Amino acid sequence: MTVVKVAVNGFGTIGKRVAEAVTRQPDMQLIGVSKTRPDYTAVIATKVLGYDLYVPADKVEAFEKAGIRVAGTIEEMVEKADIVVDATPGGKGAEYKKLYVEKGKPAIFQGGEDADVADVSFSTLCNYTEALGKRYIRVVSCNTTGLLRAICTLRREFGVRSVRATIVRRAADPKEVKRGPVNAIVPNPAKLPSHHGLDVKTVVPDLDIITAAVVVPTTLMHVHVVYARLARSVTREEVERAFEEAPRIILVDEALGFKSTADIIEAARDLGRRRYDVPELVIWRESITVNGDEVIWMQAVHQESIVVPENIDAIRAALRLADKPEDTIRVTDETLGLKKFL
Amino acid sequence: MTVVKVAVNGFGTIGKRVAEAVTRQPDMQLIGVSKTRPDYTAVIATKVLGYDLYVPADKVEAFEKAGIRVAGTIEEMVEKADIVVDATPGGKGAEYKKLYVEKGKPAIFQGGEDADVADVSFSTLCNYTEALGKRYIRVVSCNTTGLLRAICTLRREFGVRSVRATIVRRAADPKEVKRGPVNAIVPNPAKLPSHHGLDVKTVVPDLDIITAAVVVPTTLMHVHVVYARLARSVTREEVERAFEEAPRIILVDEALGFKSTADIIEAARDLGRRRYDVPELVIWRESITVNGDEVIWMQAVHQESIVVPENIDAIRAALRLADKPEDTIRVTDETLGLKKFL
Repeated sequence: MTVVKVAVNGFGTIGKRVAEAVTRQPDMQLIGVSKTRPDYTAVIATKVLGYDLYVPADKVEAFEKAGIRVAGTIEEMVEKADIVVDATPGGKGAEYKKLYVEKGKPAIFQGGEDADVADVSFSTLCNYTEALGKRYIRVVSCNTTGLLRAICTLRREFGVRSVRATIVRRAADPKEVKRGPVNAIVPNPAKLPSHHGLDVKTVVPDLDIITAAVVVPTTLMHVHVVYARLARSVTREEVERAFEEAPRIILVDEALGFKSTADIIEAARDLGRRRYDVPELVIWRESITVNGDEVIWMQAVHQESIVVPENIDAIRAALRLADKPEDTIRVTDETLGLKKFL
Repeated sequence: MTVVKVAVNGFGTIGKRVAEAVTRQPDMQLIGVSKTRPDYTAVIATKVLGYDLYVPADKVEAFEKAGIRVAGTIEEMVEKADIVVDATPGGKGAEYKKLYVEKGKPAIFQGGEDADVADVSFSTLCNYTEALGKRYIRVVSCNTTGLLRAICTLRREFGVRSVRATIVRRAADPKEVKRGPVNAIVPNPAKLPSHHGLDVKTVVPDLDIITAAVVVPTTLMHVHVVYARLARSVTREEVERAFEEAPRIILVDEALGFKSTADIIEAARDLGRRRYDVPELVIWRESITVNGDEVIWMQAVHQESIVVPENIDAIRAALRLADKPEDTIRVTDETLGLKKFL
């Protein structure tokens, strides 16, 4: 089996999770991660996880002063890699692209970048084959990934005519202490549509979709209410079965105590999931409502981890390590332990 | 001019506001309010506001021990009144109804009661004339009142075919310290529809409406995202004008700094509004989105005060103090200072 060398540029919320996921893949080797600040995350990366850490050339001294072993510069890391996963802050990826181009390396970007950073915007259940062999692939953001998993599942089974969705966004990730709101509901923005629907269209261009987003004071997960019109009338059972059988989607029962995003996270903690991550899209079973060709449901998105499986698949698509979506999904989901919830 | 004697049974969030609104009406006299606990609100009602306070017969001693002057029992208060506004906790109104019936007094109930407590569920802009002379009238809840003000405005101007709406509810009122969530998004409930759509249909029975609600950690206001289909195609300008010209609806501009519910409340505080109340439905101007016969918008509902004008109108409807909705609206809105925002 070919084993490809993967570098992860940026070791924040997404980067640290993708790096770890890479180490679990039989066809990938993590050759290093990069950081710009010598903080506790850098200490964990090197001393606890044993990753090779690469830093900007002008930061080497600062890291060494902090007692953190540096393996080289970011340029050197990119040089050594077969492919780079760019998990730098939104907008930085476009700047780093110059380096990837210069070194002749393919790269995976995140949804914080504009769509034109890459040859294709990507979500495994929607357009895996379109991304095959593409040099630059952009994995769409957490909310868009959540929407697309459900939409493309229904699209494949029944066809989808239109989608209207309300995105109730979490205010901040758990460690972000400078973001809000603390006590308000914030239209994000008031002028519609929100960017999420537009971002969905970077993957499924012909879809009639409008999204409206608000930000609310919570850190755990986003919640969406989705109002869809399908290409034909369906039964509730058909829709439930489609979601149930889809990869990376789990159904939870309010009646079993999943009364809020906090219950989903509590279960993930009780199940011993690392960092309480829930990379699956979570749909409340009771919320699935069907009237003819209309389907409405509520879903929760764990913003920190949902894009991790798609990043792994994007690596396989770019380097043609798997020709069919089901082949990468099988390996990714097995190694990450997906759909083993309740 | 006839001046009717109004008693307010229950002096909580709604009761204290309705009582004050009654004192501002030229055709009404507040003859008393009731409370069951001798707390600081009872002290404010009697010593600061000078209201006559009525209490359950078995509580007279407790109030007098606390140094709070009692004017009589709740039975005596009802006896003296021409009409009672029941603002007791949800479900209690149905119990108190026996007393109102026994004493032969008409009564206004709140949305926390089941619809069958009254002869009609009520929202001024929708069905004022239907409530004329009715003995028992139920003013629908805050979220339902907010939905109905917008829907009935569009219905009158253009006709409405269907409504889908996401209700993002505040977790608790500012003084409620035992309610949550503190950090979660709670489907309310996961099984659709939420009761709000059903409650809308108690006033507009033929409307095709489905609502989905979540509760989020904030105390200031609810926010709705409404997806409506009208009976005909419209322009954005027509919709904006309809909202602008409707009573009890104000439009705010995100561009002017109204970026969240907190900005709406901050403006109400700066404008010197008592308790920072915003009894108007607040619609974000930029959010109004029109595609043919489809209209989407975002609106905010001040849960503590939005039903106050409708309670005043309900008194006039029950006692036939005004035969036409525009007559009660003019007096109510003028005396309460509505639509004087920005």
